Amino acid sequence: MKAFALTLLASVTLSCARAERVTSDPLQSWNEGPAKASILSFVARVTTAGGPDFVRPAERIATFDNDGTLWAEQPLYFQFLFAIDRLKVLAPEHPEWKGREPFASLVKGDTTTAFASGEHAVLDALAASHAGVTTEEFEKVVRDWLATARHPKTQAPFTQMVYAPMLELLTFLRANGFKTFIVSGGGVEFMRAFAEETYGIPPEQVIGSRGKETLEMRDGKPVILKVPGVEFIDDGPGKPIAIQRFIGRRPIAAFGNSDGDLQMLQWTCSGAGARFCLFVHHTDGEREWAYDRASSVGKLDKGLDQATADGWTVVNMRTDWRRVFASEAK
Amino acid sequence: MKAFALTLLASVTLSCARAERVTSDPLQSWNEGPAKASILSFVARVTTAGGPDFVRPAERIATFDNDGTLWAEQPLYFQFLFAIDRLKVLAPEHPEWKGREPFASLVKGDTTTAFASGEHAVLDALAASHAGVTTEEFEKVVRDWLATARHPKTQAPFTQMVYAPMLELLTFLRANGFKTFIVSGGGVEFMRAFAEETYGIPPEQVIGSRGKETLEMRDGKPVILKVPGVEFIDDGPGKPIAIQRFIGRRPIAAFGNSDGDLQMLQWTCSGAGARFCLFVHHTDGEREWAYDRASSVGKLDKGLDQATADGWTVVNMRTDWRRVFASEAK
Repeated sequence: MKAFALTLLASVTLSCARAERVTSDPLQSWNEGPAKASILSFVARVTTAGGPDFVRPAERIATFDNDGTLWAEQPLYFQFLFAIDRLKVLAPEHPEWKGREPFASLVKGDTTTAFASGEHAVLDALAASHAGVTTEEFEKVVRDWLATARHPKTQAPFTQMVYAPMLELLTFLRANGFKTFIVSGGGVEFMRAFAEETYGIPPEQVIGSRGKETLEMRDGKPVILKVPGVEFIDDGPGKPIAIQRFIGRRPIAAFGNSDGDLQMLQWTCSGAGARFCLFVHHTDGEREWAYDRASSVGKLDKGLDQATADGWTVVNMRTDWRRVFASEAK
Repeated sequence: MKAFALTLLASVTLSCARAERVTSDPLQSWNEGPAKASILSFVARVTTAGGPDFVRPAERIATFDNDGTLWAEQPLYFQFLFAIDRLKVLAPEHPEWKGREPFASLVKGDTTTAFASGEHAVLDALAASHAGVTTEEFEKVVRDWLATARHPKTQAPFTQMVYAPMLELLTFLRANGFKTFIVSGGGVEFMRAFAEETYGIPPEQVIGSRGKETLEMRDGKPVILKVPGVEFIDDGPGKPIAIQRFIGRRPIAAFGNSDGDLQMLQWTCSGAGARFCLFVHHTDGEREWAYDRASSVGKLDKGLDQATADGWTVVNMRTDWRRVFASEAK
């Protein structure tokens, strides 16, 4: 009995040592500084039972933009690169695309000429690349693409171009009772194909833009077919609306990197009680890309002004992040 | 040390005894019979690690209709009764409703005359009763109504007219790693006002019909305003579409009571692997209400045929449920 008790105590001690080691720095890819300190302080405040800022776990909702916040978005949104590849695959079945813009240029990968047809026409063409398959077939198409496609600059698989500090942040928040959601302008079914494996975020916690779909019977069984047309754009003012629709509860923390996230952060930080808003500022032209107010992708202009005025956290990627991509050695 | 070890062992034994007692019959409001047996058997199969039907917890999605499945829906959907009460409150601000149908009759509670204007006109009028307030104001309106309104027949608060066997089922599924969702034709924000407290289902797991909304700035802060108009009807073929939109994963179990749930059950039970579909059949005219193929509320006709043909579980409320309402003594 004594031996048993000792073994038991030893294993308890061991578990505590392990827990100590793991939790000693949950944000090890973050350099010490105001950004990291603001995260640690906020989480401590809302999780301190009996404290003035305590928030019960069910209300610890945190929402994250995806492109430029959880993974890179240069030189173009990755889903845009997927859509171009998909148009190339589908082109032989669509002789009508030949000579018709913006399809003809997109299939050639010439986005400059394609955009001369107007942004709306390009978006319609990209939406066409996502249609004509069932939702389950589409998931497989995305998974297959992610398994083989490589980023044009780094030659890395796209799912390795996720930010190590943000992965740690997701894990840290969840370990503290938060429920983490993606709320992104990206297509919801594109993101769901990798969000669970890559971010630990299950499909029901991924909110995004979406195309139209219909329910059809095939051989007596229902299928959900993706059809042409855009149903909802989850960007700008669409983000608080989508949060209300899908979550029905105002987040207490929100994370973005562009003006498209501004309304989500405003919605989050104008609620009562302790709130946390953070912009990732792309300042690292060497390890990643440097862009903000003048960028066509991930423009951060008004957001930067409001973050400064309201004291939101702005991550200086160059100085705040010890490591950028999850694929880099620790 | 020995005393410590003994105390420890004693407390382990006590915990096990307590667990034993709680799990001895997780469905105590269900009579023994094929319905109860089918639930227990399904849950055992999908949770047996290493078994042929094992489903990992992340994929244990269960969806429940609300009206007629989790709580009663007679003599009218409870939200309909709420909307009529709300129209009465709002009527003084809307002199234009006087003499205008279906408003005039609805405000008088005369639904028969109101429906002579057509179902669509009535739905529009009911939608008007939900508009003109922010989402947060609306939640308070619903909570206040639920706290004071009484059911016309039983005089019970509406949140006590939930089915005890279904509450046990929700708890039992969650204890077995399931994530439980509401997927109902009812208004999502109406249901969210009580779903967490009444069913243990947080707002982000409540899917329903919804009106339109807009994001507005008030005193420099964003609010989400409910405006007239219906955005989405979560009924019939809308249910699988909504499940795909919100959950992005096909449920392995679905629970309904009417033909409006049929497509949800078809979508659920036509997936690969172990699946479970159940209809609550309202057969108890004494303790509740008896209705099915010819009812204007909660019509169950085609669903009953397919349930029989496909071997889905059909709950005979009169014989399968020992207790109906949560408010009854155990």
